[in-house]
Amino acid sequence: MPKRILFDIDDTLFPTTEFAELARRNAIRAMIEMGMRKSENELHAMLMAIIAEKGSNYPNHFNVLCARLKEKRPARFVAAAVGAYHNTKTSIQPFPAVPSTLLSLREAGHKIYVATNGEATKQWDKLIRLQIALFFEDVFVSEELGEEKGPSFFRKVVKRLGAKPGDCVMVGDREDADIIPAKAVGMHTIRMKTGRHAAAKSSAEFQANDFRDIPKIIKGL
Amino acid sequence: MPKRILFDIDDTLFPTTEFAELARRNAIRAMIEMGMRKSENELHAMLMAIIAEKGSNYPNHFNVLCARLKEKRPARFVAAAVGAYHNTKTSIQPFPAVPSTLLSLREAGHKIYVATNGEATKQWDKLIRLQIALFFEDVFVSEELGEEKGPSFFRKVVKRLGAKPGDCVMVGDREDADIIPAKAVGMHTIRMKTGRHAAAKSSAEFQANDFRDIPKIIKGL
Repeated sequence: MPKRILFDIDDTLFPTTEFAELARRNAIRAMIEMGMRKSENELHAMLMAIIAEKGSNYPNHFNVLCARLKEKRPARFVAAAVGAYHNTKTSIQPFPAVPSTLLSLREAGHKIYVATNGEATKQWDKLIRLQIALFFEDVFVSEELGEEKGPSFFRKVVKRLGAKPGDCVMVGDREDADIIPAKAVGMHTIRMKTGRHAAAKSSAEFQANDFRDIPKIIKGL
Repeated sequence: MPKRILFDIDDTLFPTTEFAELARRNAIRAMIEMGMRKSENELHAMLMAIIAEKGSNYPNHFNVLCARLKEKRPARFVAAAVGAYHNTKTSIQPFPAVPSTLLSLREAGHKIYVATNGEATKQWDKLIRLQIALFFEDVFVSEELGEEKGPSFFRKVVKRLGAKPGDCVMVGDREDADIIPAKAVGMHTIRMKTGRHAAAKSSAEFQANDFRDIPKIIKGL
């Protein structure tokens, strides 16, 4: 029977953690290339401290970094860092076989959706750059739903879909944000063992290492 | 004798006007690709009106566009537009022979600089993307100097360089911002017949259609 399949984005559809780290490294290397006289590791430690303080969605990490270094003319370093960061972000690639698997799920008659935490524009930007945005019937983002993923978020989504929870499947990497709350509202759950929480335990109904395992799991439901 | 040669950026080092128009067109096409049911020309006219109202450095043109279209869930369109705009911006290319000519001027013993109106980070971003940022001894941006290009701007620059005005050369496309004020403080002037003001008359000491003409002009000073 056709299912409504919801996918998390970050570390489920593409290696977000890896790309974020590469983007930060590339930004720092670009600042050094522009003449900043600090070591890569020193700058990386400062940047990570700023991200921890300000949050990852704060838009001026590199301005703060230059201010802390008492850089009087920061423009060249900020431009180099932001440019290199965006270049890396522009080159995000999905996990292997994500686009083809999504297409095959659609062709099998299922409807596919996104359920993600974050800012709506940023999450759409990722789907567009991964070239899979148009595959989804709809995209549910915490910013637009007014709350982060939890039982109430998934209850709203199931209601909007006009579906029974048992006809819905949540696919994600996070035990706390994806598996536990989706299970709590009666959805099927598939936990992807990808990203920085790959080794964590999970109470999910199914687990998968590879995106290509999903169609078989769905077929068995 | 070695000169201090100052270069404008926009429409002098690269075809800014062309790229800005292409970026806007690509942004609009990306919105349509994401499902916006308006014609390209209609959206273009709306966007140009918003840019005229808010200024070109306003950061939320596409949010305003979606608001005017009463788009209830604008994130996908804003993400598509901003992404396509930035992709185009990322691919800016210098006018023919700009990098090689700048290098040959350096090798001939001249010192080269930038003198530009705009926001410092945005202007540095352009130099970095054109891969010529490191060729310049320094970059003078109106935001950092506290005023737009005019006689007072160029007087400050000449003073900072510790040079005589007659040993300085301004190269730019704009009669009002580049040629008239640089001449007023006694600098040599070369007017590039490029960009959207290419056909305008000029009082510059020299005019050039091609960047490769600059070394010969400088040699004759």
